[in-house]
Amino acid sequence: MAGELYLEDLKPGDRFRSGAAVVTAERIVSFAREFDPQVFHLDHEAAKTTVFGGLSASGWHTASLTMRLFVGEALRMAGGAVGLGVDKLRWHKPVRPGDVLSAEVLILESRASKSLAGKGVIRIQVTTVNQAGETVLSMEAAALVNRRPTVF
Amino acid sequence: MAGELYLEDLKPGDRFRSGAAVVTAERIVSFAREFDPQVFHLDHEAAKTTVFGGLSASGWHTASLTMRLFVGEALRMAGGAVGLGVDKLRWHKPVRPGDVLSAEVLILESRASKSLAGKGVIRIQVTTVNQAGETVLSMEAAALVNRRPTVF
Repeated sequence: MAGELYLEDLKPGDRFRSGAAVVTAERIVSFAREFDPQVFHLDHEAAKTTVFGGLSASGWHTASLTMRLFVGEALRMAGGAVGLGVDKLRWHKPVRPGDVLSAEVLILESRASKSLAGKGVIRIQVTTVNQAGETVLSMEAAALVNRRPTVF
Repeated sequence: MAGELYLEDLKPGDRFRSGAAVVTAERIVSFAREFDPQVFHLDHEAAKTTVFGGLSASGWHTASLTMRLFVGEALRMAGGAVGLGVDKLRWHKPVRPGDVLSAEVLILESRASKSLAGKGVIRIQVTTVNQAGETVLSMEAAALVNRRPTVF
């Protein structure tokens, strides 16, 4: 994607794809230490005895990285996209050290805001996949975006 | 809460409250640089001209901090809590530099897993409030937890 987008540039069915990001063991552990201090996110050995069977990223780490991939790369909205809410956030598979993630955004809905002049609301489906093409995370999100300024 | 909890320790209607965490301007900016590089999370001055009216934390920063507050403090499950999914995640108010957040967890449902021996599933309502008692984030989450081991 070159350039930044306004509400009017988006219509249902449009798809946008991000570049890739590598998830390192070091960042899995340091993220978990700050935000999700559970054994399967902190310790290679101890994680083997858990339902994950090995070290895996916090779901919030994967969700945050997904945000970077789509807001910073896949769908660059002029003036930014303000998150309003998320539904159907699901973690489908563990994210492992060395995994390479990318995100795809599908536009579900785009409409003018009823209450805020110059703003619009988009609903999007976001899917994050690993290097094997397996979906690791999916969610539906709503965001406030800018309408294209009118020039008279 | 002292000690760690098993599925059997939780019933619908139970409430758990975390301690408090301060959100600093420095961490708002560094988190945003890595995960949500948008102007209203990065730059005090430029943020003033946005819908936020000033620097505010990424919603994923607030969500991740909420995880820390409830998994590390409010609801310490023996062997951890594995996130299955989240619905109705809403950001109600901006989180500002200096805000002091705490989280409350309400148990909505707790039941044995149908497919995994020794495991249970809980559904919880999580609410994150600031120092003024205003709700900044709310969500419903489902997690896999451990049942209390049976000793014969």
